[in-house]
Amino acid sequence: MAGTDRSRGDPGALAEGAPAIILVKPQLGENIGACARAMLNCALTEMRLVAPRDGWPNPDAVPPASGADLVLDRAKLFDRTEAAIADLTFVLATTARPRDMAKPVLTPVGAAAELRARTARGERTGILFGGERSGLDNEDVALADAVLTVPLNPAFSSLNLAQAVLLVGHGWFAQGDATAPWQLPIPEAERASQADLDNLMARLALYLDQDGFFASPEMRPVILRNIRTALLRAGLSRQEVQTFHGVFKSVTGARAAEKD
Amino acid sequence: MAGTDRSRGDPGALAEGAPAIILVKPQLGENIGACARAMLNCALTEMRLVAPRDGWPNPDAVPPASGADLVLDRAKLFDRTEAAIADLTFVLATTARPRDMAKPVLTPVGAAAELRARTARGERTGILFGGERSGLDNEDVALADAVLTVPLNPAFSSLNLAQAVLLVGHGWFAQGDATAPWQLPIPEAERASQADLDNLMARLALYLDQDGFFASPEMRPVILRNIRTALLRAGLSRQEVQTFHGVFKSVTGARAAEKD
Repeated sequence: MAGTDRSRGDPGALAEGAPAIILVKPQLGENIGACARAMLNCALTEMRLVAPRDGWPNPDAVPPASGADLVLDRAKLFDRTEAAIADLTFVLATTARPRDMAKPVLTPVGAAAELRARTARGERTGILFGGERSGLDNEDVALADAVLTVPLNPAFSSLNLAQAVLLVGHGWFAQGDATAPWQLPIPEAERASQADLDNLMARLALYLDQDGFFASPEMRPVILRNIRTALLRAGLSRQEVQTFHGVFKSVTGARAAEKD
Repeated sequence: MAGTDRSRGDPGALAEGAPAIILVKPQLGENIGACARAMLNCALTEMRLVAPRDGWPNPDAVPPASGADLVLDRAKLFDRTEAAIADLTFVLATTARPRDMAKPVLTPVGAAAELRARTARGERTGILFGGERSGLDNEDVALADAVLTVPLNPAFSSLNLAQAVLLVGHGWFAQGDATAPWQLPIPEAERASQADLDNLMARLALYLDQDGFFASPEMRPVILRNIRTALLRAGLSRQEVQTFHGVFKSVTGARAAEKD
């Protein structure tokens, strides 16, 4: 695991400047552990706990963290939300339902853009999540610069704590991720050329002619054109063209044997 | 809860034409239930189960579904993956790691775009998820049109089954959701005008003059300009301007009383 690829070797390597995840009055250690796992999935490593019901550290958090121990080990404990966000200059409060406060309301995508812009300017940011039972108090929401709400099925929008952390964290992670939304199946260098396809079609036509496949000479070019169209649409690799050469040859050999 | 707002009243109302979620050889009923909850959060209601280890129906699935009973009640059982996808024309296979198959690889965003385009053309689509232990077999992946992989922290990318369903489902849901990424805190009709701010600043200047606040007359316009700049940046509502009028008046009254 030692490595030149630092991002692969160190699970926390991507987290620099990332927002702190602040769990306010979480109840079950299991849920804190599941949050740690969701955080590290999204390269978030800074967990802050405000007055967890069962104290801290809590051994119940370890199994559901599934190896995200570094998040649990580094977690900082606070007695009040104000203390947990004292060093931050931009704080979001996650809420499932609208609160009657005149604050901007961001989606995960809007939040990610704002968090990344502020991180790039050197700001320290954080995201507040309420406890399992009823979420954040209005007093906690009042501390935040803006509200973050994940749009979901309006008739069934309740998430558990770790799922909320995962969706919000993934919004943040995805905006920094350069993976192409659609990666082509065959690298350009391995794609079959038109000449490769010409050779394959020539072999196929030869076999079909030998086999007497074309009942009507008028249909011969139409059928060959349709087959070429289908193969073109598949975007074959050179390797796949070779496989088809072998298949056509083998089937023809079998047919020839049958005729004997 | 009866209503004109059908999408709010019926948790499954948004799901028409949405992709089927196909769980292949899931093990724990609890995880099937958690998947049902994640599905309904994302307005996905069609669950298909291929050879669940502990049979179906499974009462263990009910509590973690947290009320997503309609997904469990409608779930269809199959003995083989081929049978579960027989009616579909576009199938994605979720995998955490690359498989050595020449298939397109999509992110949740890329997958959502493709699924929605195909749904709009009347196609029936589905997404395969493997069991908890080792994900999809290569034989199952081979059945799919394309692979779906969620980019995550490369050093810590393992998700549990319901979290994978949630991230993939949310990618699908979010692409059909019109919520603005940044909703302004004050509706346009309630925003204070420049005239409202003029009046507030005039009252403030009057009180500060009465109070002898400005030690140097040269600084008076500078300080008033800075205060106006800060209040402007807050983008006050008319209601908030009224609140500040009351605050300034009250503080001045208190000061006047102190001087008596």
